[in-house]
This record gives sequence, C-alpha cells and structure tokens, in this order.
Amino acid sequence: MPTMSAVVFRGTDRFALEERPKPVPGPGEAVIRITTTSICTTDLRILQGTFRVARGLVLGHEPVGIVDDLGPGVEDLFAPGQRVVAGAITPCGQCFYCLNGVHSQCGGESGGWRFGHTMDGSWAEYLLVPHARANLAAIPDELNDDEVLLVPHIFSAGLAGAESAGVRVGDAVAIFAQGPVGLCATVGARLRGAALIIAVDGIPGRLQLARRLGANVTIDYNAQDPIVTIRRLTEGRGVDVAIEALGQQRTFETALLAVRPGGTLSSLGVYAGKIVAPNETLSAGLGDKRIVTSLCPGGRERMRRLLALVANRRVDLTPLVTHRFALDDIGEALELFASHRDGVLKVALHPAVRDHGRLLEAAQVPVMLDDGA
Amino acid sequence: MPTMSAVVFRGTDRFALEERPKPVPGPGEAVIRITTTSICTTDLRILQGTFRVARGLVLGHEPVGIVDDLGPGVEDLFAPGQRVVAGAITPCGQCFYCLNGVHSQCGGESGGWRFGHTMDGSWAEYLLVPHARANLAAIPDELNDDEVLLVPHIFSAGLAGAESAGVRVGDAVAIFAQGPVGLCATVGARLRGAALIIAVDGIPGRLQLARRLGANVTIDYNAQDPIVTIRRLTEGRGVDVAIEALGQQRTFETALLAVRPGGTLSSLGVYAGKIVAPNETLSAGLGDKRIVTSLCPGGRERMRRLLALVANRRVDLTPLVTHRFALDDIGEALELFASHRDGVLKVALHPAVRDHGRLLEAAQVPVMLDDGA
Amino acid sequence: MPTMSAVVFRGTDRFALEERPKPVPGPGEAVIRITTTSICTTDLRILQGTFRVARGLVLGHEPVGIVDDLGPGVEDLFAPGQRVVAGAITPCGQCFYCLNGVHSQCGGESGGWRFGHTMDGSWAEYLLVPHARANLAAIPDELNDDEVLLVPHIFSAGLAGAESAGVRVGDAVAIFAQGPVGLCATVGARLRGAALIIAVDGIPGRLQLARRLGANVTIDYNAQDPIVTIRRLTEGRGVDVAIEALGQQRTFETALLAVRPGGTLSSLGVYAGKIVAPNETLSAGLGDKRIVTSLCPGGRERMRRLLALVANRRVDLTPLVTHRFALDDIGEALELFASHRDGVLKVALHPAVRDHGRLLEAAQVPVMLDDGA
Amino acid sequence: MPTMSAVVFRGTDRFALEERPKPVPGPGEAVIRITTTSICTTDLRILQGTFRVARGLVLGHEPVGIVDDLGPGVEDLFAPGQRVVAGAITPCGQCFYCLNGVHSQCGGESGGWRFGHTMDGSWAEYLLVPHARANLAAIPDELNDDEVLLVPHIFSAGLAGAESAGVRVGDAVAIFAQGPVGLCATVGARLRGAALIIAVDGIPGRLQLARRLGANVTIDYNAQDPIVTIRRLTEGRGVDVAIEALGQQRTFETALLAVRPGGTLSSLGVYAGKIVAPNETLSAGLGDKRIVTSLCPGGRERMRRLLALVANRRVDLTPLVTHRFALDDIGEALELFASHRDGVLKVALHPAVRDHGRLLEAAQVPVMLDDGA
Repeated sequence: MPTMSAVVFRGTDRFALEERPKPVPGPGEAVIRITTTSICTTDLRILQGTFRVARGLVLGHEPVGIVDDLGPGVEDLFAPGQRVVAGAITPCGQCFYCLNGVHSQCGGESGGWRFGHTMDGSWAEYLLVPHARANLAAIPDELNDDEVLLVPHIFSAGLAGAESAGVRVGDAVAIFAQGPVGLCATVGARLRGAALIIAVDGIPGRLQLARRLGANVTIDYNAQDPIVTIRRLTEGRGVDVAIEALGQQRTFETALLAVRPGGTLSSLGVYAGKIVAPNETLSAGLGDKRIVTSLCPGGRERMRRLLALVANRRVDLTPLVTHRFALDDIGEALELFASHRDGVLKVALHPAVRDHGRLLEAAQVPVMLDDGA
Repeated sequence: MPTMSAVVFRGTDRFALEERPKPVPGPGEAVIRITTTSICTTDLRILQGTFRVARGLVLGHEPVGIVDDLGPGVEDLFAPGQRVVAGAITPCGQCFYCLNGVHSQCGGESGGWRFGHTMDGSWAEYLLVPHARANLAAIPDELNDDEVLLVPHIFSAGLAGAESAGVRVGDAVAIFAQGPVGLCATVGARLRGAALIIAVDGIPGRLQLARRLGANVTIDYNAQDPIVTIRRLTEGRGVDVAIEALGQQRTFETALLAVRPGGTLSSLGVYAGKIVAPNETLSAGLGDKRIVTSLCPGGRERMRRLLALVANRRVDLTPLVTHRFALDDIGEALELFASHRDGVLKVALHPAVRDHGRLLEAAQVPVMLDDGA
Repeated sequence: MPTMSAVVFRGTDRFALEERPKPVPGPGEAVIRITTTSICTTDLRILQGTFRVARGLVLGHEPVGIVDDLGPGVEDLFAPGQRVVAGAITPCGQCFYCLNGVHSQCGGESGGWRFGHTMDGSWAEYLLVPHARANLAAIPDELNDDEVLLVPHIFSAGLAGAESAGVRVGDAVAIFAQGPVGLCATVGARLRGAALIIAVDGIPGRLQLARRLGANVTIDYNAQDPIVTIRRLTEGRGVDVAIEALGQQRTFETALLAVRPGGTLSSLGVYAGKIVAPNETLSAGLGDKRIVTSLCPGGRERMRRLLALVANRRVDLTPLVTHRFALDDIGEALELFASHRDGVLKVALHPAVRDHGRLLEAAQVPVMLDDGA
Repeated sequence: MPTMSAVVFRGTDRFALEERPKPVPGPGEAVIRITTTSICTTDLRILQGTFRVARGLVLGHEPVGIVDDLGPGVEDLFAPGQRVVAGAITPCGQCFYCLNGVHSQCGGESGGWRFGHTMDGSWAEYLLVPHARANLAAIPDELNDDEVLLVPHIFSAGLAGAESAGVRVGDAVAIFAQGPVGLCATVGARLRGAALIIAVDGIPGRLQLARRLGANVTIDYNAQDPIVTIRRLTEGRGVDVAIEALGQQRTFETALLAVRPGGTLSSLGVYAGKIVAPNETLSAGLGDKRIVTSLCPGGRERMRRLLALVANRRVDLTPLVTHRFALDDIGEALELFASHRDGVLKVALHPAVRDHGRLLEAAQVPVMLDDGA
C-alpha cells in the first residue's frame, strides 16, 4: 500500500510527521498531490488545544496541488496532472444548508470545514478531496502556486467579511487587525468599491502593506484612538461597515462602537469565549445595527472567481507569502508563524523532501496569538 | 393663546396632566388633533428613569387623529378635517441617514424617534408633526381608530422584526415574547410567508392570541424548554429566524441559541445594559449567523402600506386593543398597563375629557417590565 | 428485465402508451414508483411541436410517488416505501450554475429541467431521479397525494413569480392570467405579504378561485380595462409588481404597462417568439423598471419548504386538482386539459391500470393554449 | 431685477443664449452660481426633438458651482461661497417614490429629473436647486471642477448600471458602448469587483480609454463578433452581467444574448422606440434572466459618495473631460460634441463671458447619435 508523509495532530502541544497510507478516491472524490500548503492561526489554536479536533488527524486546510487520482463520477471534469486548488471549506452542494445557500455550514454547524478539522487535511503529500465536482477548481496556467496560495482560505475568508457586510460603492469601511485575513478584508473592501478604507493594527509593517493593498488611512492603535480618528474621518458618524478580523472581545466591541447607526459589523474572528456588546455599541438595541459572522466560503465556483481575480490582476496577494519551508520543517515554520517575527504573514509549505517520523514537540511553538488569521 | 391639556414628564416617577400652549405649525409642519393614542413599554421606562428624556416633555408616540392646521408647503397634500396617522418615527427624508435608507436613524442615533423622545408627543390634545409631507398618512374611511391604533408604532416595529431578518417563504421562525410587539412580529412572520411559526411566552392568554394571529405552535416556557422543542420541530437544526421581542439578556441568548447555523436573530427589544452572546450561540464566530436590530420604521409610505394591509383585511390587530381610558385617566391606564392584569395588551387613550392639572404620582405605576412592548 | 408502462413522445401530434424497461438507479440516483402525476401546458406545447424534445422521451415532470430503489450513496437518506416528491427541476447542486445559486439553469440553459425534457419523465409507472440527495423530499405523513401534487412544479413556479419580483409586505401586485401557475402566483403574492392583490383573467370561475386563494380584487378583462382599473386602485401609479403567467405578447406588454415607475414585471410565461416592450411601457428606459424571468425552482430543500407550507396549512391547493384519470387514459385527460372545459385546472393522473400499447393520436387533443400553465 | 444669461430651448432645432431673471430661492431652495457644466446626449435629443421638453426651458443638468443664495430652511447646512454640486436628479426625499427608495422617479415617471427637463437647468449663470437639503453636496477643497464634473450625472448613471445589475466580486461583465456613460459603467464594474471586464465599442480611442479605466479585454465590433469573443472568454456561457449604454435595439439584443442563463442585462440607454427581445435572448422566458433599467441616481448622499470616491483617488474621470468652451460658445460646443470629432467625450462649459442674445441655429449641430451618453 502506497504511503505518504503527513503532519498528524497528537493531542495538545503534540504533533508528528508520520507515514500514512496514501488516500484512494471513492465515488465523487479526488486525490491531489499537494505542491504548496500553508499555516493558519486556527491550526495553532488546534495545536494549543483551544480548538478541538480528533487526535490522529492530519492538519492543514489550504491545498494547492495537482490532480493525482480521480474516483468514479469525476473523470469527465478533471484529468491527472491538472493543477488545482480546493477550498478550505468543501461543501456537498446537496444538503439542507447548501441548498439554502449557506454552503459553509454544509451538513451542520461549521460542517463545510472538513480539511484538518473533521477529515485529514493538506499538511501531507496527498489529500483526499470529497465532493470533488463541487470543490476542485483548475488553476489558470499563467499563475504559480504562490499567487494562488491564499485562494483556498485566507482570501476567501477576508473577502467574505466585506461581502457579508454588504459593503456598497462609496462606503467608509474600517478593518480591525491586519493579519492575513484582515489584509484580505481590506482587499475585499476595495473590491466592493469602498471609498474610504481605514486599516487598524499595531504593527507598522502590516499597516504599510494594508496601504499598498487598498487602505486610504491606517491607524496604529498604539499611537492613536481608533474611535476618535474614525469619527473625525466620518463627520462624527462612524463607518458604514467595520470588519473584525482578530477574534477578541476588545476588538469586537471597538469595531461595533465604530459603526454608525444603521451600519454593519462583520465579524471574521474565531472567538474563544463569549462576546459582549456593551449597551452604547448597540444603542440599546435601537440603532438599526447588524452583526454578521462568516465562515470562509468554499466550493469550486468560489475558487474559480477568486482565481479569475488573480489571473486578471485585480488582486496580487503574493506580498503576504513571506516565508517558505519544506513540510518536514513544519516545526520551524510553526514557530516562526506563531512568533510574528521577521514580518511573517503567510508561510508556504512544500511537501517535497521526505524526512519522516521526527516527533516535533509543540513546546517549540510559542503561543502569542494576537493577529487576525 | 389657545391651550391644550397634555401629559408631561416631570422627572423620574413623576408626570402631570398640564395645560400647554397649543402648537402652531411652521413651514412643512402640521398640527393634528389626537383622537386616540396609546401607552408603550418605552413610556414606562421613561417614567421609571431607565430611558432618558428631558423634563417638561409631553410623552407618547402613537398618534391617531385629525388634521387641525397645516404649515406652508403642506396644504396641497392634506386638508383640515382629514383623518390621519403619523408614525412613531418621523424621518425628514433628506439627511444622510434617510438618503441611505435608514430613516429611523434620521439625523443621528435613534434620531427618527422624535415624539415623546426629543419632541412633544401624542399624549395631548394636539400634536405638532414635523416633516409632514414625509410623515402624515390618510386613514382609509372605512377604518376606525382602534383598527389603526397599532400602525404608528407597534405593528410597524413588530413587522420590522420579520423584515430585517429577511424571513423567506417557507422559513421556520420563532418569536420570543408575545407582548404587543412580539405578537406583531408573529403577524410579520406570517405576512412574510413563514411555514412554521413558533410563539414563545409565559402567559397563556398571549399564546392563545399568538395562535389566532398566525402561530402554528406555541411554547409556554414555564412548561417546556423552548430550545428542546424548537430543535425537535426543525429536525435538530434550530429555526431559520428567531425574533427577540423583550429586551432581556436571557431571552436574547436563548433566541440566538435557537437559530440554526446560517440563520438570523432579529432583535426588537430595548436593552437596559450590555448584551452577551455566549460562545456556543455564535459557534465561535464560525456559524454564519447574523444579529440584526431594528428601530420601528416610520414615514408616510410605511404608514400607507400598513394601513393598506389593515384596509384589505390582511391583518386585524383590534384584539390587541384591550382597554380604553380618557387621557385624563392616564395614571390609572399606566397602572393597568404596567400590571399585565386583566389580559391588558394595548390601551386606547382618548384626549377628550379636560380635567387638567392633577399631579399624578408615578409611584402608582408598579414597575414589572417583562413583556415585549 | 422488468418493464413498466409509460407515455412516450413520438413526434409532433403523436404519443403512445408503451412498455419500457423499468429504470435501475446508478450511483446517487433513485427510482420512485409514481402514484400521482399531472399535465402541464408545457406538455401540450411539446406534443404540438412548439417546444422541442427528443422523440422517444417519456413525458411529464410532476412526480409524486414512493421510493422503489436507491442507488449507491443515497441509502442513508431514504428508504424504499417512503413517500416522496421530486421537483420538476432537478439540480445537481455542484455545477457553475448551482454554486451560483441559479439551480434551475443547472449545467446550462434551462438545464435543471430534466424530467420530460432531457430525461424520461413522470408519465410512467417508475421514474429515475438523478442527484437524488439533492432532489428527493419526504412527504409528511398527514398529507395525501392531491395536497402535494402541485408542489413539484406549479406551486414552486407560481410562488417564484412573487419571489423573483421581490414582493414586499404591503405591495400592490397584479397577476395576469389565472391558470394554475397564475393562481399559484396569486398565492405567492399573499405569502409574501402583498396588501392589494389584483387577479386578471377572462374566465369567471378562475377569478372566483383567485379570490378564494388571496386576491382582493379580480378583473375580468372581457368586462373592464385592466390598466384603467389598476391605476384607479393605485392612486394612478400602477402596481409595485405585475406577474405575467401566460406567455403571450399582449399580456406581457399590458403587465409591463401596469407596473409603476421603479416597479417590477415578473414573467412566468413560456414564450413562443420574441417579446416586445413598447416604449411607453419602459419609459424610454428611464423608468427604473425591472423585468425578471423565472424557471421553476427545484431541489429537495425547495420541496421541503413547500411541503411545510402545505402541512402547516398556510396553503391549500387542492381546489386546483379538478379531475382525475388513470394514466392509461392520458389521451382523454389531455383532451380535457387542453379544452378548458368543465372548469379544469389540474388533472391528477394515476399510473395504476396497465393497459399498454394503445397508440393515441394527438389529433384528439385540440390546441387552444391561452391559459397560464 | 438681476438677470443672467442662459441657453434656452426654443423648439426643435432652435435654441438661444438669452437674458433671464436671476432666480430667487424660496423655502428649502438654493441658488448656485454655475462655474462648470456640460453637454449630455440627452440634451442633443431634446434639441433634435426626439425627447420632449417645454419651449422656453433652460437646458442642462450637470451643475458644478458655488452657493450664491439660500432660501429659508437651508441656511444651517450651507453658506454662500461654498463649492457644491447638485445631481442631475433632484429628489424631494418625502414622496411615495422617494420613501420607497426609488428617488429617481420622485413624484412620478422620471420625475426626479428636473434640471433641463421640467425645471430650468444648468446652462446658465445661476441655477435654482429645489429640495436643497436633499440635493446639495459640498465639493472637497482639494478637488477642482473638472475632477467632479461627471459626478452629477454621467458617473452616477454609469455606476448605477453596475449597481442595479448587482455585479458581484468575481463576475464577468461586458459593457456595450464606451461613450461617457459606458466608460463610467466600466468604472462601475471595476468598483463592484468584477474579475473580467469586457468593453465593446467601435471607436479605438474609446476602447483604449476603457482599458485605462478598468477593462481587461476590449472588443472592437468592427473587427470581431462580440458574442463569439464573449463566449470564448466565459467557457461558452456568456457574461454574468451585460450593460447596455447606448439605447439602440441592436445593442440591446446583442447585450441580452451575451448574458448567461441566470444573468442580468442592465440597460442604461435612452430608447427612442420599442425594445424587442428575440426569443433566444430570453430562452423562451425560462432562462432566469433579468433586465433592469436605471435612471441616474441623485441626491446629496449619492453625490457625497461619488465625491468621496474621487477625493480618495479610487476614480479619476478627468480623461473624459476632453474639451472646454465658454457657455457663450454653446453652439460650437454642441457641434463638436455631436460630431464625435477629435476624441471628444465630455465638454466643460463655463458661463463666464457674457455675450448674450445671439440666436444659434441648431442646424449647426449635425445629428449623428451613436454614442453612449
């Protein structure tokens, strides 16, 4: 039986590079060979035990690769050797949630998120893709892996922040936290035609990148009060839309306060506990405000659209791919990603060199989660 | 100078029936003679001091009356003697908020709500209506005052709960609290085509009325757990939309928990403090849930639509008008309304008998606010 | 090999009751035994040759039945013996169109419509249902076949007329033609909360039924000019929404003219040729009018919602089921249906008696299509 | 009585530069001194008699100027000397249409369009602005007249083409005709996040500009078949949205044919006669296609949003301002504008030099209207 190397979750603070059977596609499924994948803050939370998944699971949910094998019922659409992505979220298209247009909740609460959550993920040489007709999307020839690495998850999630909020042309939008997802929400605000885009973070390098990706104004919260600045920029009203891209109470309530009456808070953060809306943030319930939460949209057509944006040069997300590792060096990659050192935003991982079996201690990975992805 | 009698707020727990100058309409304004008005829970909160307005203000925001006098620029649309309503919310139609379609926030936070809040209200013989072109609506001849008494506020607010949530034909909707606003939200769910309408309250008489107004299922929370019942009725998922019509933390979080992934909580309550969303209610931010809050929509066209629904017999809200008082007996009326005695839902007040100057002690009004309007 | 009887299209004006192989479900497919099906105007158009399908096709697209056999990948959801419907439109849920939310266009132009169009249909003892997970819906036990017979097509299509138009609570809506689809559009206008529902037709019995199903006003176009009456009822403006449920030029342009500036014409008709919008109907392009066309929505979740409306007694469509035949008597049934005699609206067909092989001449079916379904 | 010079319509093919009384603002009105205005194709149609207005009307609907005088009820918002624009469309904000959100139809069919249509327009030294609170918008200090000249009409109208169509991030959009409105629709498609923007015209200079403003692909219809090219670029499907910006039958039907099933045709053209949709363009009514028409949105908040887009450098429309004339030279300006010579797109007119009373013969203005504005 063919095998592959994969990064396996072994319980809080433990993971291992292991040899696993290479998956075999069943009906409607495909197997892709991973050429590039990445690390997301949610992966760190899993490793730290604040987000639960089963022991023995292969982690990772950002697959870029090449079709390796196709199950029955998929052969007409794809061919081995074809370069493809699949989304972090892989909806079936046929259940209650999908047919109601909420594909991310496929099958139940957060159920569309399978890779590295309820199914083996992309930190491996090979990945089994369920519902392949609904989820595989061909990468345009002219694009390299780095150019599309954020499509499966980060770009889709960040853009969803602007979409779910219903950003309109001419809106004023503030994005709180400029980690990878927040930066992509900034891109999303630009793509939806916001007139005034305000990026908020505490790391100067991220604010610089935000400006390059579309922000008109940046606020370093260490230097100025975001609420005061936002009100000054909006004739005292607040923004039409605020996007929370961090997942912390303080950011949530600041963002909600920054929204004008009748405006929308779009929340992208993954929260570890309860969320509190102080009374003034919601005008006692009389402010016609809305709070929307979004899990990353997936599915083949979502991927196709995002790839088209990249291919047509509406968006260039390569500045977010700051570092590169072999998958075997996952420990080192995780340590860097968690550290926020060296301007790290997204790390490209390549499952090329086979050097299996090393048990990596997650103790190597310092845990200071204050970014937005 | 002509005078009129009016119920004036005199500070927490104090109000008085006083003689006031009869208002004179300026440009774009109208004065109507009130034939019927009513009491809302918000009025109680003002009297209790939990919702702030200025001393000396005439209270009340539910005007039904007859055009008495018209300022310049309104004469072509209306004529003295014409029966009209104005909404509790009276937008100008021309400011930032109105032109953005958020008329209730006219001019700023909750700014469309003027009567009994920032301008003299309807607990008086006469009422000055600002922006009269945008706000007066003719009552169809065949309708009496009782039939339209809920149009200015309660019906508009309750219906907005279903509208803001985007209830779709075939949805499952649960409405928490069946006070006047909650009952009208139940009507709203029916008008939007919900298939399964679940009304939740603890007062059997209100649940009976809910069923008469459109609920398929009623849940007495004293007898059964709403979450358990709702899940059983929805194949374990929860409802597509939950409407909160009370304004309390416990109801808010139960309603949010009752919503399926990808569904919407529509909040109509007026909250006295912060709102907390426990983590499981929002699936850690990953559930694609939305929370929408609504202040009552107003304006002439809103009124016209609601009046058309009544005139065409799509809706009959007279069962909610349970008691009747002279405006002079406002103290007695308030005491009854606050008590929840005798199946009281809405009280019709008529400023007919002039018996002025009595100082009424709000201590007469027991404060047990646990209904939804 | 087991066989079944089926009504097969044999070219313009020719069809036959034939013996066919009973279908066998492949992966993701199901076979249901038809207990009741019906005739739609589109079927007549096919028989007359004005709507093209392949010779040899089994006609019919309104299946009510019982699960007979399940292919691999469906067994967990359904069991043989279960009563089910499938929609006239059977989307895959996974293609470009489905993932963009336009399930009716699955795979390409009108591609979701398979039964009796591009796949064998429901005028047979057994029906192969493709993409069964996405399309089969269980019939609630308490409902009989007649109560759900319009769910697969007519109710879904008619309701879509109101939905695609975005009918809002309080709208004035006029529905042109009160054949089965038009009557269901009238129901749809009521379910979306229209205040004023105006039904237009030339057959008094249909107008009576329209009133019973929700119309406030009926217009017999033989007795009065619809435009004049509609303007009188809407202060001269026209309706917010007009629904065309016939598919003829004259109705199309009258309906468009009946729409107020900024309003919507929702077209449900199947047109045989070009459509012309005279200049005054569109205000030279400056009237902010919209024209929307809809093919019937399908899919398991759509069916579930419509069944819930019936089960919760929001809708009773049994008055539209006016006649009943054995499937063997399809010729007689078609003749009656096409004739508009005897108040016929929808015909229930039961594939019970096996009396195969008679060649029926379509010449028996007079062709006078001027109704709306 | 102070006077001003103004260009007055004197019947088909005749206009005159005349001395007129300078307007005086009434309640809620303002008078602005025009610093720059422009010519629109609709003005040509009026002069040619294909679009009717009253004799004696001052033409022009694109005002950029300075507040000169304020009527009662406006003084708190503006001050003389302030630089402002008003939209071509000036809604009241308070009528049936405005309160229903269709501000362009204020008061009735196309009723929001007042300047140079039902009220004296901007081809004059001074302009009376009705409903000034709802319509005047301050020009940011850093912007000059040329930068904002397209805001009152052309930019708002073109952008509306993309908005009314509901262009989504990642869509493929084709814009037919790249006159001023079509070019702004191209800008609108970009602002809404289209991935693939296809501009169609027959004038190479306009296609070059389209590319500069956001088009990825341009089609010269003299060199290639737009339908063939569009299908090749969209995997055979057609575009998600087509925008018609010319107002001719041939363009209308090509654009409708270019739309994929389930897509939208957004029509911006002003049509001189009926519009015909050949059957294949609408899939016999079964294609789930939509046709939307838009009159230019106006109002102070619309203007504010567009000005914010310009001020924040999301949009630069100065390349469209190709020529400049004194208002006295209106005859020469019209002749150039109508000729399509010299790459003319928009003409800036300045009412500075007073040289009144010359009667200009419209015979000087050749009439070859085949552009998009």
